[in-house]
Amino acid sequence: MTIPPVALSARTAVNRHPERQVHDRQALYAVLDAGVVAHLAVNRDDGPVVLPILYARDDDRLLLHGSTAAGALRLAAEGRPVAVGVTLLDGLVFAATMFNASANYRSAVVLGRCSVVPEEEKAGALRVLSEHLMPGRWAEVGEPNAKELAATLVLALPLAEASVKVRTGPPADDPVDGAWRGVLPVRVVPGPPVAAPGTTEAVPASVRTTAARLATD
Amino acid sequence: MTIPPVALSARTAVNRHPERQVHDRQALYAVLDAGVVAHLAVNRDDGPVVLPILYARDDDRLLLHGSTAAGALRLAAEGRPVAVGVTLLDGLVFAATMFNASANYRSAVVLGRCSVVPEEEKAGALRVLSEHLMPGRWAEVGEPNAKELAATLVLALPLAEASVKVRTGPPADDPVDGAWRGVLPVRVVPGPPVAAPGTTEAVPASVRTTAARLATD
Repeated sequence: MTIPPVALSARTAVNRHPERQVHDRQALYAVLDAGVVAHLAVNRDDGPVVLPILYARDDDRLLLHGSTAAGALRLAAEGRPVAVGVTLLDGLVFAATMFNASANYRSAVVLGRCSVVPEEEKAGALRVLSEHLMPGRWAEVGEPNAKELAATLVLALPLAEASVKVRTGPPADDPVDGAWRGVLPVRVVPGPPVAAPGTTEAVPASVRTTAARLATD
Repeated sequence: MTIPPVALSARTAVNRHPERQVHDRQALYAVLDAGVVAHLAVNRDDGPVVLPILYARDDDRLLLHGSTAAGALRLAAEGRPVAVGVTLLDGLVFAATMFNASANYRSAVVLGRCSVVPEEEKAGALRVLSEHLMPGRWAEVGEPNAKELAATLVLALPLAEASVKVRTGPPADDPVDGAWRGVLPVRVVPGPPVAAPGTTEAVPASVRTTAARLATD
């Protein structure tokens, strides 16, 4: 692959289980493209806060969006340092001891400072968010209007400093007679769509593409 | 209910969708008891970091555990302010416009400072963690030994300052002719257990109780 590796620094090197750290940009993209909810950490003057937030990857940046009223988002919009974590749990790992029990997961943490997506680029950024979260829905419902755009804050965080950790596979300890060892996989399975009261329209294609996108591969 | 409400302050009051904020302690417990992975935010000198971490609720405190080598955990152990977020995604909400699209979720954020669980209480705390994550497994595999205990750092965070937000139900906008409105539920479904190579033992009861505990109600 010719894509440059994710920048690593003392800030994103991991001390614990360094063998789980993945250093290529495609792995970072894969985790971010699979996730739905991120946790955005930013400092208030009295300590960190963390906010769950919907996001999308747009090439080499992360887009975060929310209401202009959300406090943590406003702090991030000021350009304060942020950390954004995305974690997908893939299973629980049963070892012969509790000490060696673990979880299978994919996680990414991105560090940096956000910039505010300017007004003229906001609709395009929201479209990227829409296609990540509900692929196909944008075309069905049309563009947001000016008032809706004005009430929405979209931030961009460069994917310049990031760390990816992935654990897969069976427990790493040695077999012990009498002890079952293995993995209990955890999957995300979308349920059948539930129409809102009064909705008589057929379920649109975007709901099916979204279900396929959310389901664990 | 006679249990006191979760303490609210300017730090945990939410500006955005205050109607989604829940003020009773049982709601906080329910979110924390359903989750598996938390995101721990703590400040380094150059900004926040966020670490995905397994946790459990122990009465009126949150237990966090990891290796003594994990940097963010060590910073939290110093007593620096932390924020811990737990979010469960329950569905995506399709409205007549993208602006009114949303997610159904349960989320909790706990603020405070951690203390290190002392050596003599560590085994008991690990047992609580074990019962939360893999109910029944502790009894099957026995207690950790002294060396394992020494390599494990367990932190306790009081559930004194917390915020809970929950969104459920259909989109809140008005029906528009021709636009399907509704919810695509997202469920966590444990897969069949996968035995490690060489494991011939029968799947133990704890794997089934864990699967039942992980599955979305």
